[in-house]
Amino acid sequence: MEITLTTGKKIACPSGASVLEALKQAGIYLTSSCGGKGTCGKCKVIVKSGPAESLSKIKLSKEELGRGYALACKTFPSGDLLIDIPKESMLTVEGKVVTGKAKDLLALLHSTGAPMRPLTGRVVLNLPPPTIDDNISDLERLKRELFAQGMACLRVPFRFMPGLAKTIRKENWEITLCTIHTEDCEEIICIKSGYKKIPRYGVAVDIGTTTVVVFLIDLTNGNLIDVASTYNSQIRFGDDVITRIVHATEHNKLRELNAAVLSDINNLLTIIRRNHHVDMDSIDCFVVAGNTTMTHLFLGLDPSAIREEPYIPTANTFPLSYAGELGIKADPNIPVYVFPCVASYVGGDIVSGVLAAQIYRKHELSIFIDIGTNGEIVIGNSEWLASAACSAGPCFEGSGIKCGMRATDGAIEGVKINRETLEVEIKVIGDDGTVPVGICGSGMIDAIAEMFLTGIIDQKGKLQREISNRVREGENGPEFVVYPGIGGDIVLAEPDIENIVRAKAAIYAGFSTILKEVGFTFNDVQKVYIAGGFGRFLDIEKAIMIGMLPDLPKERFEYLGNTSVTGAYLCLLSRKLREEAEEVARKMTYLELSVSHIFMNEYISGLFIPHTNIDSFPNVKKLMNK
Amino acid sequence: MEITLTTGKKIACPSGASVLEALKQAGIYLTSSCGGKGTCGKCKVIVKSGPAESLSKIKLSKEELGRGYALACKTFPSGDLLIDIPKESMLTVEGKVVTGKAKDLLALLHSTGAPMRPLTGRVVLNLPPPTIDDNISDLERLKRELFAQGMACLRVPFRFMPGLAKTIRKENWEITLCTIHTEDCEEIICIKSGYKKIPRYGVAVDIGTTTVVVFLIDLTNGNLIDVASTYNSQIRFGDDVITRIVHATEHNKLRELNAAVLSDINNLLTIIRRNHHVDMDSIDCFVVAGNTTMTHLFLGLDPSAIREEPYIPTANTFPLSYAGELGIKADPNIPVYVFPCVASYVGGDIVSGVLAAQIYRKHELSIFIDIGTNGEIVIGNSEWLASAACSAGPCFEGSGIKCGMRATDGAIEGVKINRETLEVEIKVIGDDGTVPVGICGSGMIDAIAEMFLTGIIDQKGKLQREISNRVREGENGPEFVVYPGIGGDIVLAEPDIENIVRAKAAIYAGFSTILKEVGFTFNDVQKVYIAGGFGRFLDIEKAIMIGMLPDLPKERFEYLGNTSVTGAYLCLLSRKLREEAEEVARKMTYLELSVSHIFMNEYISGLFIPHTNIDSFPNVKKLMNK
Repeated sequence: MEITLTTGKKIACPSGASVLEALKQAGIYLTSSCGGKGTCGKCKVIVKSGPAESLSKIKLSKEELGRGYALACKTFPSGDLLIDIPKESMLTVEGKVVTGKAKDLLALLHSTGAPMRPLTGRVVLNLPPPTIDDNISDLERLKRELFAQGMACLRVPFRFMPGLAKTIRKENWEITLCTIHTEDCEEIICIKSGYKKIPRYGVAVDIGTTTVVVFLIDLTNGNLIDVASTYNSQIRFGDDVITRIVHATEHNKLRELNAAVLSDINNLLTIIRRNHHVDMDSIDCFVVAGNTTMTHLFLGLDPSAIREEPYIPTANTFPLSYAGELGIKADPNIPVYVFPCVASYVGGDIVSGVLAAQIYRKHELSIFIDIGTNGEIVIGNSEWLASAACSAGPCFEGSGIKCGMRATDGAIEGVKINRETLEVEIKVIGDDGTVPVGICGSGMIDAIAEMFLTGIIDQKGKLQREISNRVREGENGPEFVVYPGIGGDIVLAEPDIENIVRAKAAIYAGFSTILKEVGFTFNDVQKVYIAGGFGRFLDIEKAIMIGMLPDLPKERFEYLGNTSVTGAYLCLLSRKLREEAEEVARKMTYLELSVSHIFMNEYISGLFIPHTNIDSFPNVKKLMNK
Repeated sequence: MEITLTTGKKIACPSGASVLEALKQAGIYLTSSCGGKGTCGKCKVIVKSGPAESLSKIKLSKEELGRGYALACKTFPSGDLLIDIPKESMLTVEGKVVTGKAKDLLALLHSTGAPMRPLTGRVVLNLPPPTIDDNISDLERLKRELFAQGMACLRVPFRFMPGLAKTIRKENWEITLCTIHTEDCEEIICIKSGYKKIPRYGVAVDIGTTTVVVFLIDLTNGNLIDVASTYNSQIRFGDDVITRIVHATEHNKLRELNAAVLSDINNLLTIIRRNHHVDMDSIDCFVVAGNTTMTHLFLGLDPSAIREEPYIPTANTFPLSYAGELGIKADPNIPVYVFPCVASYVGGDIVSGVLAAQIYRKHELSIFIDIGTNGEIVIGNSEWLASAACSAGPCFEGSGIKCGMRATDGAIEGVKINRETLEVEIKVIGDDGTVPVGICGSGMIDAIAEMFLTGIIDQKGKLQREISNRVREGENGPEFVVYPGIGGDIVLAEPDIENIVRAKAAIYAGFSTILKEVGFTFNDVQKVYIAGGFGRFLDIEKAIMIGMLPDLPKERFEYLGNTSVTGAYLCLLSRKLREEAEEVARKMTYLELSVSHIFMNEYISGLFIPHTNIDSFPNVKKLMNK
């Protein structure tokens, strides 16, 4: 069977394959946060003509069904089809993912003062051909040349020996070596014949519980070539780390979880490489940051003991591994550096974030918070660092929110509600005229704050039907229409609002608990660095207004975007910063909030907007009184 | 189809399989020096009844054919068979291979003064189970315990991480680690749950061009558990290293040669392990010694450049490798230490031999000679070492000699011819009453010397028909009946004698050339250590008489047997000796004899018995005059 796209492209569809699978085989990747279970509703296509059976209609409105919408993962052609792929269903690539200060990466690297020295290097050697008077072996010849160039120690893993004689002779005794500095020695990771010093690339990966982000970096100059991201397709096994650990443990499905995230990374990298004509051969290394559970699942390590008291990971620091032993589609011998973790619930993504925020280098007391699927907080300075985790949930990344989406093209990232007319004004990520297809984290915060200020929701987050005609009865109870779209309205329903309120309560409780634990108050904190996938901008005032952030002067806050991948970028390009990351992981202490009464009390107090104790939000109180 | 053995055992024979293959699949290994090509005639079986087609009758006498003898490799059943396997066809196992001073191995180790410290160690750890107050990761827990026990550095390869959490918890936090000291650090090579400190074994392997020998060693006490050996089945691709390199290079068959020697080692080890009920899990390490070409073929390294001037191996020292990456049937993670080589024609077997002979520790000038398929000579003392190779050929190992065999059960190892009656008296390896089935190296030397002294052969090695009625016309010209057997006579034919004379000429030429090159004479040499697979004893006087060894006082010679496997044994049990072996390889210089005129002249002079220049053999001359 054949599927024709409205763009004219034709692809084959093997019998029994879903439209999603057929598209994937043809190299067309759709968003699919549930991994093809038919539950997330993200892989919508429009069947224009042809016979197909759709096994799930969940997440599709009556209007959409009338217009031929179907979920690609649950649609099985029984003949040739003509389909249209809506923009919002395409897996995002080509730098369109908003990762905060992605453009300033190089400036950030330079600002650290660390010299650019990528994780892996390449050396070109022109060896003197052997003669009867200079008849040392190939390996000795290679070593002699490297030592003459000042290399003090060389480790040659056995796997490079079988090909050595041929490679070394192929281009007239000119060879290119790739090396990595590890355990006080240079280790060979590739041997190529001839001059292959450039091009060479590195890959920085952030494995979030909800989102996977891949950066392709030019190692010769530190430039960001491209970014791609997708939902972590482990989501099909559960939204949070706990349900995934349960799945891995009780259903013995570690391998499935592992394969899911590998296929995400491999797919993203394939897309970027293709778009930029980058050979697999030019990719020299990977740096990966993720929370402790994501790191375990990525590496295929048993995460069982992370879940239960006393919460023990297999490891917090990981031996260097290689693409081949992990299942990454690349030269099997290239190294994969994985960020060290601190504890079961403060992982490599946080170490990476602290590296990006540089709080470990400052004298002033700073807080770093990464609001992803969990929510981790680090407080400290150049002397000490303490960390904790609060369960915030993945809603700000779009998961669990009916019209939620990541901060990519088409996401509503800003919402304003006119105080008089209650008319809604929105800001959408993308070129002018981009049609909104969902709402991302910053948009949600804006919307909740504006709805609260205009009385559309009350302090408990309940929608007030009588205030605005945009409030209506939806399929799951009352909902607010943020944007009435042609392809379906973008709404925030009451369960969505409840989710957001719970998330912001957990975050605020995290702040106040860790401060109390280390004996400080909010006023001692000079800087609050916020990481997460909210969007390009996070409106700090709105975030304070809903009670997510403490009521401090606006200038003390800085929104950094995705710091996990930023830190991975830094480690990819600087040996010194890699060493600093390891030092950060070693010195950071961990506070267990899950057994803390302070945390529980703070969380419950935070389930109001902005907070049960309104006096801790003096500026919001002032505004409310207006 | 089914094959029944006369012992009563029944085995299946898949259609199309040869009898040799069917036996092998059933775990019954026959000697097969040509590797199943039907040319060596070593895999004889007797077909008692049943239909079978025999495609080759080469190497079988008319009498044998009459009695149902067939070559197992070229015999294909077309129905059920009853067969008998003659003793001499069975692949030798159970300590019956004579390897010189095998019994004195432990004494030799003690005599070096080096402490027993096997290549790999095992440590049992009883870890304190984690608590909420002691919640470091599994890996950190393990490291903490090892460091507390005094270990300074630990390397954990990534491949051990995925199983760690389960293994560590399986037997109540008791685990056994296997480690190897490498690159100034202890590297983990296995992690097992519970107490698994004993039993543990190591395997020492000598890969000769003609013979492969395997020692199974108890690492807890240094005892030799058993020995097994077989012809190197690479022989099917050629008798010497050059033809094998040609085969690997020009026919692109490196993989086949590699597979052949691996299957030899795997088969031998399987047999020994089965006989001694040793689990694969109890084998912790391998030490392998072989000449440079054998080492390359074993490791799968391209040997092409070894063959042509300027004779360049891929490497002379080899990174540590692991059973899994080499294809050795064992825990894939256990290490395989390969002896360093010196040059293309002086390999790890010679370094191993020098280690066993200990000449590098002595003040006096010694010569070490290993007479295998090649013939390598080392001269020197504790100050310096020089080496050279002379092409002696494999005849003393039984290859290329009609009734030749290795020094195993049933081999004629001694021959005496009565000066008056010319009656022949033989000594056979094995229990009393063992029926001789062939002749090994020491038997050949004896026979040639005795035939020469009694005039049965002349100075050129030609048989004198009129002297003895044991000289008869054979299928390939004149032959001498050493033993008239029931299953076929054991003879030395004229081509056999020519082979032996060429071999002894090359050996003697090696001695004299290397001495001249370093500026010494035979009289400066205090000790001559002889290695090789001649038999349990080598009659030095007879070896001098045929002109293989120089005419020096008998007490200056010492026959050491297979020193390659002995040195491998020493390295398996002592880290200090392993370091000494590496030092020996580094300091040994190499002289290229293939371009030496001195060598060529000496060789030609040696093609007489004992030598063209009889004055260089004064004692033989005296005896001849008698």
